[in-house]
Amino acid sequence: MAGNSFGKLFKLTTFGESHGKAIGGIIDGCPAGLKLNFEAIQNEMERRKPGQSKIVTQRKEADAVEFYSGIFEGETTGTPIGFVIHNTNQKSKDYSHIKDVYRPSHADYTYDKKYGVRDYRGGGRSSARETACRVVAGAIAKQLLKGLKINAFTSSVGDIFIDKPYQELDFNKIESNAIRCPDETKAEEMIAKVQAIKKEGDTIGGTITCVIQNVPAGLGEPVFDKLHAELGKAMLSINAVKGFEYGSGFCGAKMKGSDHNDLFNTDGSTKTNLSGGVQGGISNGMDIYFRVAFKPVATVLQKQSTINNSGKTVEMQGKGRHDPCVVPRAVPIVEAMAALVMADYLLLRRQESRDW
Amino acid sequence: MAGNSFGKLFKLTTFGESHGKAIGGIIDGCPAGLKLNFEAIQNEMERRKPGQSKIVTQRKEADAVEFYSGIFEGETTGTPIGFVIHNTNQKSKDYSHIKDVYRPSHADYTYDKKYGVRDYRGGGRSSARETACRVVAGAIAKQLLKGLKINAFTSSVGDIFIDKPYQELDFNKIESNAIRCPDETKAEEMIAKVQAIKKEGDTIGGTITCVIQNVPAGLGEPVFDKLHAELGKAMLSINAVKGFEYGSGFCGAKMKGSDHNDLFNTDGSTKTNLSGGVQGGISNGMDIYFRVAFKPVATVLQKQSTINNSGKTVEMQGKGRHDPCVVPRAVPIVEAMAALVMADYLLLRRQESRDW
Amino acid sequence: MAGNSFGKLFKLTTFGESHGKAIGGIIDGCPAGLKLNFEAIQNEMERRKPGQSKIVTQRKEADAVEFYSGIFEGETTGTPIGFVIHNTNQKSKDYSHIKDVYRPSHADYTYDKKYGVRDYRGGGRSSARETACRVVAGAIAKQLLKGLKINAFTSSVGDIFIDKPYQELDFNKIESNAIRCPDETKAEEMIAKVQAIKKEGDTIGGTITCVIQNVPAGLGEPVFDKLHAELGKAMLSINAVKGFEYGSGFCGAKMKGSDHNDLFNTDGSTKTNLSGGVQGGISNGMDIYFRVAFKPVATVLQKQSTINNSGKTVEMQGKGRHDPCVVPRAVPIVEAMAALVMADYLLLRRQESRDW
Amino acid sequence: MAGNSFGKLFKLTTFGESHGKAIGGIIDGCPAGLKLNFEAIQNEMERRKPGQSKIVTQRKEADAVEFYSGIFEGETTGTPIGFVIHNTNQKSKDYSHIKDVYRPSHADYTYDKKYGVRDYRGGGRSSARETACRVVAGAIAKQLLKGLKINAFTSSVGDIFIDKPYQELDFNKIESNAIRCPDETKAEEMIAKVQAIKKEGDTIGGTITCVIQNVPAGLGEPVFDKLHAELGKAMLSINAVKGFEYGSGFCGAKMKGSDHNDLFNTDGSTKTNLSGGVQGGISNGMDIYFRVAFKPVATVLQKQSTINNSGKTVEMQGKGRHDPCVVPRAVPIVEAMAALVMADYLLLRRQESRDW
Repeated sequence: MAGNSFGKLFKLTTFGESHGKAIGGIIDGCPAGLKLNFEAIQNEMERRKPGQSKIVTQRKEADAVEFYSGIFEGETTGTPIGFVIHNTNQKSKDYSHIKDVYRPSHADYTYDKKYGVRDYRGGGRSSARETACRVVAGAIAKQLLKGLKINAFTSSVGDIFIDKPYQELDFNKIESNAIRCPDETKAEEMIAKVQAIKKEGDTIGGTITCVIQNVPAGLGEPVFDKLHAELGKAMLSINAVKGFEYGSGFCGAKMKGSDHNDLFNTDGSTKTNLSGGVQGGISNGMDIYFRVAFKPVATVLQKQSTINNSGKTVEMQGKGRHDPCVVPRAVPIVEAMAALVMADYLLLRRQESRDW
Repeated sequence: MAGNSFGKLFKLTTFGESHGKAIGGIIDGCPAGLKLNFEAIQNEMERRKPGQSKIVTQRKEADAVEFYSGIFEGETTGTPIGFVIHNTNQKSKDYSHIKDVYRPSHADYTYDKKYGVRDYRGGGRSSARETACRVVAGAIAKQLLKGLKINAFTSSVGDIFIDKPYQELDFNKIESNAIRCPDETKAEEMIAKVQAIKKEGDTIGGTITCVIQNVPAGLGEPVFDKLHAELGKAMLSINAVKGFEYGSGFCGAKMKGSDHNDLFNTDGSTKTNLSGGVQGGISNGMDIYFRVAFKPVATVLQKQSTINNSGKTVEMQGKGRHDPCVVPRAVPIVEAMAALVMADYLLLRRQESRDW
Repeated sequence: MAGNSFGKLFKLTTFGESHGKAIGGIIDGCPAGLKLNFEAIQNEMERRKPGQSKIVTQRKEADAVEFYSGIFEGETTGTPIGFVIHNTNQKSKDYSHIKDVYRPSHADYTYDKKYGVRDYRGGGRSSARETACRVVAGAIAKQLLKGLKINAFTSSVGDIFIDKPYQELDFNKIESNAIRCPDETKAEEMIAKVQAIKKEGDTIGGTITCVIQNVPAGLGEPVFDKLHAELGKAMLSINAVKGFEYGSGFCGAKMKGSDHNDLFNTDGSTKTNLSGGVQGGISNGMDIYFRVAFKPVATVLQKQSTINNSGKTVEMQGKGRHDPCVVPRAVPIVEAMAALVMADYLLLRRQESRDW
Repeated sequence: MAGNSFGKLFKLTTFGESHGKAIGGIIDGCPAGLKLNFEAIQNEMERRKPGQSKIVTQRKEADAVEFYSGIFEGETTGTPIGFVIHNTNQKSKDYSHIKDVYRPSHADYTYDKKYGVRDYRGGGRSSARETACRVVAGAIAKQLLKGLKINAFTSSVGDIFIDKPYQELDFNKIESNAIRCPDETKAEEMIAKVQAIKKEGDTIGGTITCVIQNVPAGLGEPVFDKLHAELGKAMLSINAVKGFEYGSGFCGAKMKGSDHNDLFNTDGSTKTNLSGGVQGGISNGMDIYFRVAFKPVATVLQKQSTINNSGKTVEMQGKGRHDPCVVPRAVPIVEAMAALVMADYLLLRRQESRDW
């Protein structure tokens, strides 16, 4: 069971290496009759695209999606949606120097151990370039989800954190700045931080918070496929992610039950929402929110000592065009993966109806 | 795809409600020829069992496992292992008062929304009693994993944290105290804390750290089924879990790349291990370690105002015998789920051999 | 992926050996709110049960099903339905003589090759006893399928064939005779044939025809999971089955297109139904019908020369109580597997609705 | 679970409509380190290709496969193999006349019922064009299977049957004639038959026999995923297939056990092979052989009365370039699907090893 598929009823399978001819995927299970907004899809691609601002990698990639099947006269037909994104701007020679070298905290070493061979150019399959395919599928899933609102944003860069609850933030401001932080003051600090780090030839980590609103109650499949467990797996499958927490998260582990319990209103909603919209793995109708931790990008433009595949120590220095901080470009990826999970569980939910 | 199965090649499917006749499961895919140590299996059950110490629920359950198939003359036959644990000590009347009531931060409300009907006794399917089946399967997986060492322990209760790196802890001391903390001084504080909380009729959260040692390099299935993503899902599927982080985790999100990168030794091991033994979703041979956050148990023995299924406000008070802190009993569950993930990936790894 | 599960949304996983403590299974994905008719379930068990007539094995087994979970106050709860059938009438000593012997055309040899160990008693896992679990799940699936009518019957024994189209048969007569053939004249011939064969200590093969009526159009999942492909796999997974054909089947391979095409009536139904109710893997609303070929039971009560596991030639003679012809007892199994397939596809169909 | 994936460990997912931009697929799970013979792959494509002889459709399609990923310097990398076949020779206007018309015994009606929308051009997704992707994957699977020999051939056209056992046939002659029948005399009769049928503007059915040799014992996953059950599903998933039988097949249903049993030689092989190389769903090391029935192509170039999507009766006549008999082009498809099944089970087999 090689792990290149995600989802059950709404299933995405991706292929492609960073510097191969193309990357792409197949979405199997998208219901028929959905009129697609292609501009909205491409717009999500732009949000993930390199070169979109001064604080991300300056690589230039068109990231133009070509759909080959599953759509007829602008409408999904229920058959698999095959799509391809041609790789247009690879500079493979940027990578010739790592042909035999294992970059620290990269997947070079593990891919070699697992497969005994690898396409080293641009990180090959382990490159975050693969996530472009997730964004395509996520953009379609979003259109399927209509009512739901999925908003992710940068909640911290290094030690700069938003210190307001998400309810006090204006999600319309997320796209108003390069770091994708709806708190404009913090956004400026974060951007300054990233620019300083970039000057040092270094990189920095951060966190993304995601809020899903208008979720119907009843989504999730206990006991192993709990809604939050699948969301966690989805996020942890994104490059550079080191942690996931939802609702009260790690803070909840310090609390007392009497403080942590969410008391009910008579309409079934709760006065507080430390649960994060999920109880026993099933959505309860309140907002679902979670936080995702991203490590700093491993490629630093400073000298580092490492080894090659014959176990010799070598000096290396990151080349090529890299992100000083992955977080701003990861925001649409987090939303895409959240959309894939929600679409899958909504379809699962549909077949539970009790009218026979 | 109802979610009661876990794993691909080593697959566990469980059934059972807290107060039904029995709980149980089927392990499909356990290779043939494994001589089982039944004492070791039962021993894991004892670690999870209620009533094992003063700081856990005083319910008495035998938790005796009966194996019905897949084992012949003490050896696995490669056919599915069916097992059952009869429920012997239910006091269903303890729950009659919640027949129509939704307990705050429990799954009563969401199960009703999803299924329209529920076995309310003892929480039914949403009860942590289901995890007994995971411990059975995990105990068998551990025997399959021979070389690997999987040790989980309580790393915090409320705001009492172990402040040493795991390398300085003696895992042999984990079972030496009721809270399962290898740091004896902290253990005493934690136990005192739980006892105080219990007196108040309240509950408290905590965290568990798990360390997996002697892991071969090359386990994990990029891009979606990354080893740490599956570990995360496994942990998040355990009752009361709110968060998961591995390696540097959320702290890593504050760091710079130049500090975070794990430099190589010439033998391929790394000088530091902020990566937590996984790169690009594949094990690199270093220790895998992660931390799991548990919320405080929702059932407090204090008066709470809540609603019933006709939306009326009602006063309720937790009855029955409950855990003031779930963490000590969750330690073997965390180990069991980790063992299930590792066994599955080890079997997946086997079929990648290159000799044709 | 050990192969002991069947179905996707309505999923059955079975366990158990012929002479172990018990056999059983888990049905995961049965929707909540289905009031179960337990008498109807047990009645299906009686149809499969040994000892029910003079022309089947005289083994006596209670085949009483115990449900352990997933049902509350007679209604399904949407949680997994765990069930067990205790083995009560094994005479394991009947099998001591085959401990090291490979019976011709049995699975003894292949199980040994695959697993290196086997529970030889009564054929262990390869025994048709396992199908009792399929009948339990199939009986529940039938109750889910309400409107649909699934009727299987014996269409041939040896060279005695029903020579009428199924439309001319009265399905109410299927249970009126021991061979389960609705054509009473043929039924008598078939029964006489089986009795003669039994006297010789020999066995005989036969075929079963199954007709599914009132099927809604639109069931099936092209391109690989075509409705008839899944039905074919389901039937081929039953012990002793050698062939499957639907609609015109093998005869269709001799025909011309101009004779084979089913012309439409204006309501979308077709004047003929050589297609067997499926086009392009999707039901078209016409009757689905197919035929299943069963080989003669391998255990003959005559002397045979065979080998043991050290490659020595040995003389053996079948002992124990065996079926001279498997077909009459296989009729409810064919219906059960058909019901499992239809239930699964009906649930899959539900989530295709176009209203968002 | 839309049904566009096949296999578990060696998994193919396909996309594409007959007249869309392209068809293609993703092979996930092909082990790393396999040096691919691309000529051999293209050669399989030529065998399936239209226009290859006088007795098949005269459509001209290049069927050139482009590989986009998973291969580096001619060797598989263990990452997903994405491939695309561009559609180059569609004459969509050939199909404008069926835009609203349901062709008899085609999937037009059922696709409309299921999806409510369809790409009618060339049959869209229901076109056998999709099988080109299966041939690509099957050709790679064959290279993985090295030792195994998989030979399919035409065993009948209409009522012209090969009357020799396959052991007496020379498989090297399969490709020596346009109908792919190794019995040259029969081949001539079959070809003449197809030419006569073609003149009438009619079509004819036929059967294909497939023989798999050098199969190791121990492949197959009881109880539901029996080796022959998966082979049956694979064959039944091919367009126009109506039946499947293996070993003695439907004839076996007429036999006595004393005649049907395969007696052992002391080396574990059997004197006869009515079992068809499989016992209890597991290969026994003897040849696996099976027969597949194909209905006559539904598109006849004669006037037919049918209905349109408003339920009106209309006269129609097949246009475009169609096959008078699908069998010769289906031979490589049968081999491809057989190779996919065997590759999957071989990989599954690998992880059963008993050395820990």
